[in-house]
Amino acid sequence: MKIKINGIGLYIPPKIETSADIAKLIGKSKEWIIEKSGVLERRVSNIDVDEMGALAGKAALKSGEKPDLIINASGVPKQTIPDTSVFYQKAMGFNGIPSFSIHCTCLSFITALHTASSLIHSKVYKRILIISSDRGTRGRNFDEPESASLLGDGAAATLVEPASKLDESELLYFNMKTWPSGANLTEVRGGGTNKHPQDSDTTLADNLFSMDGPAIYKIARKQVYRMMFHTLKNTKIERDDIDWVVPHQASGKAVDAYITTGGFKKNKVIDIVSKYGNCVAASVPMALAVAVKDGRIKRGDIVLLIGTGAGLSAACALIKY
Amino acid sequence: MKIKINGIGLYIPPKIETSADIAKLIGKSKEWIIEKSGVLERRVSNIDVDEMGALAGKAALKSGEKPDLIINASGVPKQTIPDTSVFYQKAMGFNGIPSFSIHCTCLSFITALHTASSLIHSKVYKRILIISSDRGTRGRNFDEPESASLLGDGAAATLVEPASKLDESELLYFNMKTWPSGANLTEVRGGGTNKHPQDSDTTLADNLFSMDGPAIYKIARKQVYRMMFHTLKNTKIERDDIDWVVPHQASGKAVDAYITTGGFKKNKVIDIVSKYGNCVAASVPMALAVAVKDGRIKRGDIVLLIGTGAGLSAACALIKY
Repeated sequence: MKIKINGIGLYIPPKIETSADIAKLIGKSKEWIIEKSGVLERRVSNIDVDEMGALAGKAALKSGEKPDLIINASGVPKQTIPDTSVFYQKAMGFNGIPSFSIHCTCLSFITALHTASSLIHSKVYKRILIISSDRGTRGRNFDEPESASLLGDGAAATLVEPASKLDESELLYFNMKTWPSGANLTEVRGGGTNKHPQDSDTTLADNLFSMDGPAIYKIARKQVYRMMFHTLKNTKIERDDIDWVVPHQASGKAVDAYITTGGFKKNKVIDIVSKYGNCVAASVPMALAVAVKDGRIKRGDIVLLIGTGAGLSAACALIKY
Repeated sequence: MKIKINGIGLYIPPKIETSADIAKLIGKSKEWIIEKSGVLERRVSNIDVDEMGALAGKAALKSGEKPDLIINASGVPKQTIPDTSVFYQKAMGFNGIPSFSIHCTCLSFITALHTASSLIHSKVYKRILIISSDRGTRGRNFDEPESASLLGDGAAATLVEPASKLDESELLYFNMKTWPSGANLTEVRGGGTNKHPQDSDTTLADNLFSMDGPAIYKIARKQVYRMMFHTLKNTKIERDDIDWVVPHQASGKAVDAYITTGGFKKNKVIDIVSKYGNCVAASVPMALAVAVKDGRIKRGDIVLLIGTGAGLSAACALIKY
């Protein structure tokens, strides 16, 4: 599908929390945290997801005209109703723009990019702003040291438009799979009808992030490898033709697996997890934005966006940037 | 876009709660409830949204092969993470099917139908199961009698496939607008980063449904009328050519407005609100399913799906069934 990412915005909260800072909160050493999560430091936002996302969104739009669709592609909403896209629009000062949310936790951005490409291909919209904004530090369970030490806050936005005839840009391939046998491996059990806040047996832990990292890693490594293999086979693109891998920043170990198991060269895999942690759905577009802004990813480069998310799901999008 | 709804499923919870039953809980008379909400009775589910949705989903699939995409299009999730589509897939006994959620509260189904049509038009998927399942009675605030008396539980599912060359079926037109100045008119403020369950100032009411019905009605009536007018103008279809209007079942008054303000004949507007209440995102596909099952909506009929949702948003889809 002939689409082009014509704007990209990033919001990095200024407040840094080091692994030494969080060590005190979770009763583990700085070394344990770095060994388990690969996260040296993360950002902690003191503004909410809508304001974070609106700052990234405005940066992606630059001074250009307003979008004709706003998609929120985040892991955790601002509130249950209305969906977060409405609050982005409010914070950006727009009015009348259709907006909705796409949610599949950490894969929300990859899925939204594919959906936006389809809507552009169908000639419905021409200027789609996708915003991913997550404030995972709000849902940390300090009694679960591994996941608590992973999460960080951040936001990124991309402006997706039709590619012109002269543009090389394109979405070349997309794939997604969901295996609900892994539904309980990554959870926030509260926030809906399951463990409703008014139920007497809903605990504080039900409303916090819970993750069985080692179990996910075991399944994910195999399934993601299989998905990469099928992507190369179906697109007839060689591994060495992929200029950049932009993985979900699940953990240091998960990002490294694209090198150790995936066989990609270390300098081709965008790694922001040590600096920003796992920013849930914002991780993929943040990593993309960082590598575009520092000049690594250039027009015409072949970029593989890939990762796993709660579900358990795996998804990838291969784009010519 | 050449799509066809090839299967439709409905789940109506067996337990009936009459307006006399709820009158005791909200300190209002049965007559007050019927006058304000237009709801004579509603269903209260004792199974959760995933099981309700899976029953509707299975009914839509009949004994046919499994879908290649599952979209959850509901107002309130089962839990924050993972998204509800995963739990539908689990409850239906499937595995490996990509799945995600589309959320714009009461307009989730109309938006998902349009998105699914675009994904089919782009030849990405061929058999998309959209499930809307809401259990609004779980979030009723009995201190807010008007909204508490409106909400009901239910689920519906549709199977969307490409239309064949011989089929008349088609999505003729779609439109959506969101005005975030109305973001606070319909809310569940909890369940996310805004009023987090662990914050000491988050109240029980923050986690319940809150709605300023009269304020919404005032804006919605005008905006929906304008959207209908533009739909007729843009599609060059006359009002009398529309065989059926399937509105969001917001309230008795909201459904009646399609007759009194919209100018449609009473017997062309599908009205299930008095029997099932406002079932949030499930209302539109439930009304569609009821009218297809009782033989009113037939192949080739022109059907206008339309409504408003929290945001404040308005959306419509004009289909040839």
